[in-house]
Parts: sequence; C-alpha cells; structure tokens
Amino acid sequence: MGRKIGVLTSGGDSPGMNAAIRAVVRAGIEKGMEVYGISRGYEGLLDGEISQLDRSSVGDIMQRGGTFLMTARSKRFMTEEGQAKAAMMLETFGIDGLVVIGGDGSMRGGLSLAKHGITVMGVPGTIDNDLGYTDYTIGFDTAVATVLDAIGKLRDTSSAHERAVIVEVMGRNCGDIALYSGLTGGAEEVLVPERPFDLNELCRKIVISRNRGKRHNIIIKAEGVDISSAELARQVQEKTGKETKVVILSYLQRGGEPTMRDRLLATLCGVKAAELLADGGSQSKAIGTVNGRIVAYDLEEALQQKRPFDEEMYDMIGVLAK
Amino acid sequence: MGRKIGVLTSGGDSPGMNAAIRAVVRAGIEKGMEVYGISRGYEGLLDGEISQLDRSSVGDIMQRGGTFLMTARSKRFMTEEGQAKAAMMLETFGIDGLVVIGGDGSMRGGLSLAKHGITVMGVPGTIDNDLGYTDYTIGFDTAVATVLDAIGKLRDTSSAHERAVIVEVMGRNCGDIALYSGLTGGAEEVLVPERPFDLNELCRKIVISRNRGKRHNIIIKAEGVDISSAELARQVQEKTGKETKVVILSYLQRGGEPTMRDRLLATLCGVKAAELLADGGSQSKAIGTVNGRIVAYDLEEALQQKRPFDEEMYDMIGVLAK
Amino acid sequence: MGRKIGVLTSGGDSPGMNAAIRAVVRAGIEKGMEVYGISRGYEGLLDGEISQLDRSSVGDIMQRGGTFLMTARSKRFMTEEGQAKAAMMLETFGIDGLVVIGGDGSMRGGLSLAKHGITVMGVPGTIDNDLGYTDYTIGFDTAVATVLDAIGKLRDTSSAHERAVIVEVMGRNCGDIALYSGLTGGAEEVLVPERPFDLNELCRKIVISRNRGKRHNIIIKAEGVDISSAELARQVQEKTGKETKVVILSYLQRGGEPTMRDRLLATLCGVKAAELLADGGSQSKAIGTVNGRIVAYDLEEALQQKRPFDEEMYDMIGVLAK
Amino acid sequence: MGRKIGVLTSGGDSPGMNAAIRAVVRAGIEKGMEVYGISRGYEGLLDGEISQLDRSSVGDIMQRGGTFLMTARSKRFMTEEGQAKAAMMLETFGIDGLVVIGGDGSMRGGLSLAKHGITVMGVPGTIDNDLGYTDYTIGFDTAVATVLDAIGKLRDTSSAHERAVIVEVMGRNCGDIALYSGLTGGAEEVLVPERPFDLNELCRKIVISRNRGKRHNIIIKAEGVDISSAELARQVQEKTGKETKVVILSYLQRGGEPTMRDRLLATLCGVKAAELLADGGSQSKAIGTVNGRIVAYDLEEALQQKRPFDEEMYDMIGVLAK
Repeated sequence: MGRKIGVLTSGGDSPGMNAAIRAVVRAGIEKGMEVYGISRGYEGLLDGEISQLDRSSVGDIMQRGGTFLMTARSKRFMTEEGQAKAAMMLETFGIDGLVVIGGDGSMRGGLSLAKHGITVMGVPGTIDNDLGYTDYTIGFDTAVATVLDAIGKLRDTSSAHERAVIVEVMGRNCGDIALYSGLTGGAEEVLVPERPFDLNELCRKIVISRNRGKRHNIIIKAEGVDISSAELARQVQEKTGKETKVVILSYLQRGGEPTMRDRLLATLCGVKAAELLADGGSQSKAIGTVNGRIVAYDLEEALQQKRPFDEEMYDMIGVLAK
Repeated sequence: MGRKIGVLTSGGDSPGMNAAIRAVVRAGIEKGMEVYGISRGYEGLLDGEISQLDRSSVGDIMQRGGTFLMTARSKRFMTEEGQAKAAMMLETFGIDGLVVIGGDGSMRGGLSLAKHGITVMGVPGTIDNDLGYTDYTIGFDTAVATVLDAIGKLRDTSSAHERAVIVEVMGRNCGDIALYSGLTGGAEEVLVPERPFDLNELCRKIVISRNRGKRHNIIIKAEGVDISSAELARQVQEKTGKETKVVILSYLQRGGEPTMRDRLLATLCGVKAAELLADGGSQSKAIGTVNGRIVAYDLEEALQQKRPFDEEMYDMIGVLAK
Repeated sequence: MGRKIGVLTSGGDSPGMNAAIRAVVRAGIEKGMEVYGISRGYEGLLDGEISQLDRSSVGDIMQRGGTFLMTARSKRFMTEEGQAKAAMMLETFGIDGLVVIGGDGSMRGGLSLAKHGITVMGVPGTIDNDLGYTDYTIGFDTAVATVLDAIGKLRDTSSAHERAVIVEVMGRNCGDIALYSGLTGGAEEVLVPERPFDLNELCRKIVISRNRGKRHNIIIKAEGVDISSAELARQVQEKTGKETKVVILSYLQRGGEPTMRDRLLATLCGVKAAELLADGGSQSKAIGTVNGRIVAYDLEEALQQKRPFDEEMYDMIGVLAK
Repeated sequence: MGRKIGVLTSGGDSPGMNAAIRAVVRAGIEKGMEVYGISRGYEGLLDGEISQLDRSSVGDIMQRGGTFLMTARSKRFMTEEGQAKAAMMLETFGIDGLVVIGGDGSMRGGLSLAKHGITVMGVPGTIDNDLGYTDYTIGFDTAVATVLDAIGKLRDTSSAHERAVIVEVMGRNCGDIALYSGLTGGAEEVLVPERPFDLNELCRKIVISRNRGKRHNIIIKAEGVDISSAELARQVQEKTGKETKVVILSYLQRGGEPTMRDRLLATLCGVKAAELLADGGSQSKAIGTVNGRIVAYDLEEALQQKRPFDEEMYDMIGVLAK
C-alpha cells in the first residue's frame, strides 16, 4: 500500500495552483499513493476539512484561475499549539506527506509541520516571484500577462489624450512584476522597491520624451515603492505639466486562466512533489525551477535564500524605452 | 466638386472611434467629398491642426482602441469667442460640414458651431451610454466586455478566498455599464446612480448568499453612486463579517480593441454622417441607433432627450443572481 | 403548485446556451415552477434523462461556452413514433411546458411536441443567425468575435508575407457570420451563399489593391459558397500571381466564453420563456429579438419566415474596404 | 564612428520578431552604431531595399505580431551567385554586420553571407522551436498560447457533443508545439513526428476514457505526423464509434500579440546581437537561450546541433491525462 499524502493551497491564490493540484493528485495516484485534498489551507487542516481525491476530481480544472481547494489565512496555525494540532490532524488521517502550494509564509508553515514529523514538499505558488530559491513562481507569468494586457489598453487611451499614466502593480518587496511587465510592455519608467526612486529624474525623462514627440508615458510602479501612486501622480503632473492618471490593477493580477508557462511550471513541480513523496523520503523540500530545470532543495535552506535583483534587465528598460 | 468636410474626436476617447473615422473618410471620399482630419478635438481645430485624409490614411486602424486623431479638452472653445474663431477656421479651410465624434459635451460643442453656419453631424462616441436619443453609444459594448473580463478574473480569486469584491466601473450619471456588466457577469448586486442604495439590504443579501453556500460576492458599483468604494467596503465588511476588497477599473475601460458591435455601430454611424453631408443638407443631426436601426435626429432636439433607465433589466439582476 | 417545465439544448451547441438555461431555471423557480433539465436534447428526452434543477445547479455556468445539458442529434426523434414517445415521457414526468434552445431543426422538433399537447418555447440558440423571425440568434455575436480575433492574427502574418488569405467561416445557407466579420474585420472581400460569386471580379480587386500598395488581402468565405476554399485559393493564386492561403475556422467558432450580447440575449429570451410558461398559456412560441426588443411569435408561423439578406451591409464592404 | 549594421527578418514570420527588431535598433543606436532595416528578407536585400532606422521608427511595434520589415522567400538568394550579390549589396551600403531573425533556413542563409565577410548574428525567430542550439525560439510561446486558446474553445463544444476532436498544429520535424500545448492543455493524446504512432493504442485510450465517463477527447497532432488528419479522424471514428472532428489551426499560430516570454526572449536576443556587433567582433554567432541564460554560439556549429526530444514531458502526458 502506498503512502497517504495531502495537498493544500495557502496564502494568496495564484493562477496555476489548480494545475499544480491536478499534477500532485494524478501523479500521486499513478505512483500508488492515496491523495487527500485539504480545503482552506492550514485553517481547513485544523478543522479536518480533508477528503480523498481521485483522478476525476481534478478534471477540467487545469485552465481555471484560483484554487478549487480554496485558501485562507489562519491565525490559529501561527501558534506552536496550532501547528502541533495540525500535525496531529494529519496523523489522524494517516497522512505523513504534505504538498504545500503557496508563497514564503505558506512554506514556513510547512516547515513548522516538518518539525512535527511530516514530510513537506513546498511548491511555489504566488504571483509575486519573491522566493529566493526558484527563478520563477507559479502565477507570475500570468500576472505579468494581465499587466501587459492592461498596458495595451492604457496605451490606446493615454496616447489619444497625450497623458502619462501610472500603473500600480503588485509586489511589496519584489519588483519583478513591475520589471518584467515594464521591459516587455514598453514602459518608459519602472519603479521597484529594490531601487531608490528619483522624482526629478522621472520627470526629466517625461519632459524629454514629450519633446521628442512621444505621446504617452507609461510608468509602472510596484506597490512596495515608498510613495502612494496618487501622490506620485500629483507631483509628476505638477512638475511636468503633463496630465497624469493612476490605475491600480490590484486583484485583477491574481485571476485569469494561467498561461502555458504557469501551467507547465505547476505541472512539473506537482509531479516532482508527488515523485519525491512516493519515493518514501522523509526530507522536506522546496521545489522550483533554476536555469530552466526543476530542482528540489532542502526546505529550510531554500527559504533562507535571498532573491537577487536583475540589474541587467532593469538597466535595459532605460536603454530600450528611450 | 464635392463638399469639403472635417472630422474630429472630442472628449474622453472610446473604443470604436477609429472605426467611425475610417467610415467617415472612406464613405465621404466615395461620395466625392474631400475629408479633412482635425487633430486634438476643438483645441486642434482652433490651432488649425487640419489635414486632408485619403483612403490609406485610415488603413489598419479600425481594430485599434483610442483615436488616431487624438482628443483633448479645450477651455478656449468653451467661450463664444472661441466658437466663433473655430467656425472661422473651418471657413478658412473651406469646410462647411463637420463630423463630431464624442459624447454629450462634444455634441453641444458641435451645436455651437452649427449656430455659426457649419452643418454638424454628431456621432455618439463615449463608453458611458449616457445619451438620451440613442440606444447605444460607440465604446459601450467594449467597455462592458472589459468589465466582464475583469469580473471573470476576480471571480477566481474571490471564490478561492471566499471574499466579497466591489468592482467600481465608470458611469457618473448613467449606470448602464454597471447594469449590463452586472446582469451578464452574474454579479450579486449592482449599484447605480439612478437608484437609491440601501446598505442593509446589500448586506442582508451577502449574508443570505453566504449561508446558501455561495463562496464569492461580486458587487458592481458605478462611480456616480454616492459613497466611495473604500467606505462601502469598510461598512460591508463590518456588517457582514465577510472580507471585502475593492477594485477600481478606471481607464482600463476606455481602451482595448473594439468589439464587433462597437465597430459596426461606428461604421454605420460614420457612413450615415458622410451620406447626409454628401446629400448637401444643411441641417445638423445627431446620429445613433434606435431599435436596431440607424437614425438621424435634429441635433438640438436629440441632446434634450432624457435617457430612460431600464427598470426591467435592473429588477432581473435580483431575480437571477439569487 | 406551479407548473413543471423542462429545458433542453439541441442541435449544434452555441455560446450562450448556458446563460439561457440559467435564466430559464432561475426565473422559472422565481415564478413558482419546478424546472427539469433534460440532457442530450431529444435523444436524452427519449431516454428519460431528466432531473430537477435548483438555483445552484446553474451557478457559475453563464460565462461558459458549450451547454452543460449537452446536446445530440436524435434519429429516433425524427419519426412520428419517436415524437409521440417523447411527449409521453414528458407527460410521465408531469412536464407540460418545454423550453427548446437550439436552431431551426431543434425548433421544428419542438413544434412536433407542441402537436402532442406540450407548450413549447423556442429560444434561438445557434451561431448561424439563420432564423427568419429574429434579428439575432444566441451565439452569433461570439462566433463573429472569434472570427475577428482570427482575422487579427491572420492580418499580422499575411501582411508580413504580402499574401492573400481565405478565411472559411460557418454558414451553409446564411452568410451573416461572413458578412458581419467581413465588414467589421476590414476584409477586402466577402463571399456569401446569398450572392453569386464572380472569380474575375474578386481577382481584379486583389490586383488593384496590390497595385495601390495594400500588403494583405483578407477574403471571408462562408462554407455554403459553391466552391471549395482550396480550389478558390488555387484559382486566385493562378490568376493574380499572389500567394494565397486557406484557413478553415471550423468548430473554433462554436466555442469560447459568450460575449455580453450573447449572454444578454440568452438571459432575456430565457426569462421571457419562463414568464410565458408561468403565465399558464398553452400557445407555443418562438422567442427572439426584433428591432432591439424581445418578442414571442407563434412558433409555427415564426419558423416559416424567410431571413432577408442585408444588402446595405454587403454593399458597404465594397465601399469601405477599397 | 560606429559600425553600420543591418537587420532583416526571413522565412516564416513569428510573433516577437518586431520586439527583436526594436531591441536591435535601440540597443544598436545606444552603442553608437547606425542600424539599417532591410525589407523582405534576402529578397529585399538583393533589391537594395535598405533604409536607416532611428529610435522612433520602431516605436509601438513590440506588441504587434508579424514583422514590420516583412519577410519573403528568395530563390535568387539560394544560389552562390545570389549570395555573393547580397554580400556586395551590404558592402555598397557600408554594412558589415547583419542581424538575421529567422529559423534554420534563414540562419543558413546568414552563414553563406558570413563566408563573404559579413559578421552575422542569428536570432531564432520561428514558432516551431526546432533549432538545436537554443531551448526556445521566439514565437513558440505565443504559438502554444494560441493553441491553448483553441483547445479551450474546442473543449466546450466537444464536451457538449461528447465528441473527439483532432487539433492539427504546426511542426513538420519538431513536435514541440504539440507537446507543450498537449501537456498544458490537458489533451488526452499527443502525436508528434519524433515518435511512432499506434492507432490501436490511441483508440483504446479513447474507448477507456469514454467508459470512465470522460465526455471529450482532445488529440493534438503535429502536421509532420505521417497520416492526414482527415484520414486519422476517419479511422478513429470507425474504430471507436465516437464522432471525431478535425480542426487545422494553420496560420492562426503565426499571428497574434507576442506573449511576455516571446517579447522577453526577443528583447534579450536582440540586445545581445547588437552588443556583440558593437564590440567589433567578426565572428558570426547564433544567439539563443540555454538553461534560462542568453548564449551566443559559433553560427556554423550551432546549426549542426540536433534538437533532443523531451521524453519526460511526453511520458507525463500519458500519466496526467488519464
């Protein structure tokens, strides 16, 4: 008889989570394991919201955004007592392997369960791309696609009105959504939390580009940058004389059908997680992609890695948008 | 020799304006007229930004959002002096017929030119659908499509988190974007400026739907409703205990490729405007669609018509979303 | 106690059928009726695949293409014996009102049930727009949107290669998909079954447009036109010397999320069908939209109406594409 | 004074070519070079269709499909004489560095120019992903996205009708489009030219999945597989009794807005090409991406590399689609 494993999604949802669940379930069953879905993340785990999944329970979900297991924040799980209780609940169901699909906080939650004897596989599900050990996280590609779609729409109308527009995107500590969408969306300027922000330089560029005949200016600003978008717009408008609008994309970036890349990454990570658990190992791992290959690192060590900022891409924006 | 006519876009841009310009230009040339494009609306008219357009100058633009003639607000044109100067400018170029593509304010601007002897054809280009004399305006269908796309994305993530989300859409005096996207997007509640808003009733519905097992609540709120979205979210969350988020779609609604409906309406209105001018008439008209047919009404009278609110659709939302 | 009614989808599926089902179910229940879903059209009816639907059984389906009740062709139902058996099956379930969502053939099937005492409401679900009594059918708007999306993609690559491309769209007897997508997609030529087709004229236009500097030619051809697309391409290429490719959109046109217009039409028709049945009437009706208003005509008479061809739009293509 | 360099697109167009041109032009100018655009590939080169590009000539093109430089096949260039003449033409314009954006054949064309003293940088622009030296080619990600979109639409309608559908995708020698879209689109079966094809096994799977309650079967077939799609459909339908339809996506796969990945790859390759030429080197290179990093290999050696087939992904489809 194969191992019994569980799978849950936790923290903010991201497009591709369903594809990851599907891969865990189907590859897990193929490997002879029983797979249990845990609803509402750690909160549902504490409440015993656990039920077995078969192949057909994950049919037709790969292309859907969100997560059919739902997700939630759990205050109760943040205490040592909660974590012990959660581990006990898994034990009650005979589950000793768990796939946690989520971001940094969710994986740290998994780590706490690992300390109670559960073998935990972390699968990086977050749009923010803010994990140090993996080049990409599941949902990031889709989130950037949503931003690009928005930039396309805003370019039309900004150009018609000869306006500047500030597009606020997600990213509290990590500017990757801003960086990637800015470079590939043809934004004139990208503001990220990793780099200081110089208002005068920004305004200078806007004035210069207008004088060169450019009709619109798209400025991408990560939410983590230390000025509100409204205030930034006010200052830019005052200094440049150019009408400046703000659009905050907010939760739109979390939804939508996952792109091929996100489905693929989710599928490969999910299969890897199932395989590692089926192999009977007891070491908890963080799964991800490095240099285009699927990797599995020690969970604790992986979470300590710092994410480097891509200077080269950042500098390229200045060169190409001019 | 045919008449010389001008075409301009004015006010907020809307998807389909380019399709309307194309139709005016090509149908106008077909009818033997010379067609001049005026850039930046009335502001550009005052500055003499006028140049002749040929068939190929409007190639490959039909599917683009925005307006390649650009648009602007013009304070100078708001005075009688400005209007006289604008009419004189048209006279200088030998233009005695003008197609104005825009909303209510833009058409009123056209009316003032009509009083100086210009024959003006108003083509309804605005996403707001707030003109009384026409069933639909150019851009409305696309704006609703953009809202539906957003609702689809937000449904994923709201459902995963079991949240309510308030989607703020455009519409200061006219709730049509909210109404149409609410009914066809499956929103639980639609708040429009035409109807009073009852917080307790809204919260009751949210509680009841949660108790019936519904995981997400989508509330569409037109910007003209007399409470800020942030404040509304605060109150809903307090009263229902359900986490409630806000997304403000803002200028996204103005952009994007026009839908078939908007291209079609724009094309039919543009052709009609060109035909009426080619017929040599001197009566200014507002062009639109009533009961599926293209109509041309006296411009002044058309602008006095009040837009009725569609009670039936509004009531249907309550029935169908339950 | 309210009436018991059934709802089925029949014939080729079309985007918006789910929205129509949802409207029938929810408006029907609101009016105090019991609503039964019949799977697989008339075939499922004969097999008694009938089950009661509640409000939540039609949750989250409005935006989905296809039909969750499925559809099928039924040879058995084509005989008088089959029709009598089908009517008896409805009687067995106590159902005396039936909403049939489908095209011409499906509605004729409904008519045969009407003759056995069932009150039938026909809701026009077909992408072909080939029904005489209604201006639009459910799914047509979405099908045209799919064609426009394809034209957009093909324009890119045709323009890069300076090619002509023949896009074959659905429409055996009715050229409306070709007509609407051609006019709003900027096609150079539209071939429809309603009009004779002159190869030399087509080739002349291609040569002239190339000489005028146009890089691509998009030719939309309805499948009902009396020459195969491959043969047409061969002849065009031979006569004009211009490389000519064929793309057959086929079943792509049947799928996809319904547009706002299709969801709206489906919703309004579905509600109307439920209302008429709830009013207790026994006259069978065909529901549709004429001049922008929802109408309900006598079913038999409605099916005898011939669809007129829109000459004006057809001629406009020639003028605007030049 | 900087070097004079040229850029051309050749062979079948692919989404992202414009982004690559933009990057070459803007990074090239930044590095102090003069950049010349050559229209219609090698054919245009022979005809001297060469003109200098500045920053603004590549404005607003990154998001467009196709290639604004156009592309063509050139028989004249296939002879040694033609190649010598082309090299001479470049010399006449003072151009000694050339960026060739295209697939295998286009790069081989570049190699022949390299033998006449031109420094050639090959940038991999083809949707087929069939180059051995690079993990991905520009346009591949977008092509797969187009296939996924089609699969989504076909799933709706296949499911409603309980049909099988064969989706024929591009790929004469390389099954990557089929492989990636099949795995991430949830196809039941993927047929690629790299693997033998067993009709009985395919039919067995269809029967088993039907018996397990699956309503639709999506079969992705690369065009290079040694049976026509129509013939395959006929045989499947005969052997399984399941209605089987064919959709051939054809040139749709070449068009559309490039995805983020394609824009990014194009941008990084284009910048790299410009940098290598600006550095004054005279060695011709093929640029691409290996393990997530941009690489530049000797052009001749790169073209000799065989593309490996991803067995692991291929096997995964069988496991996950069951």
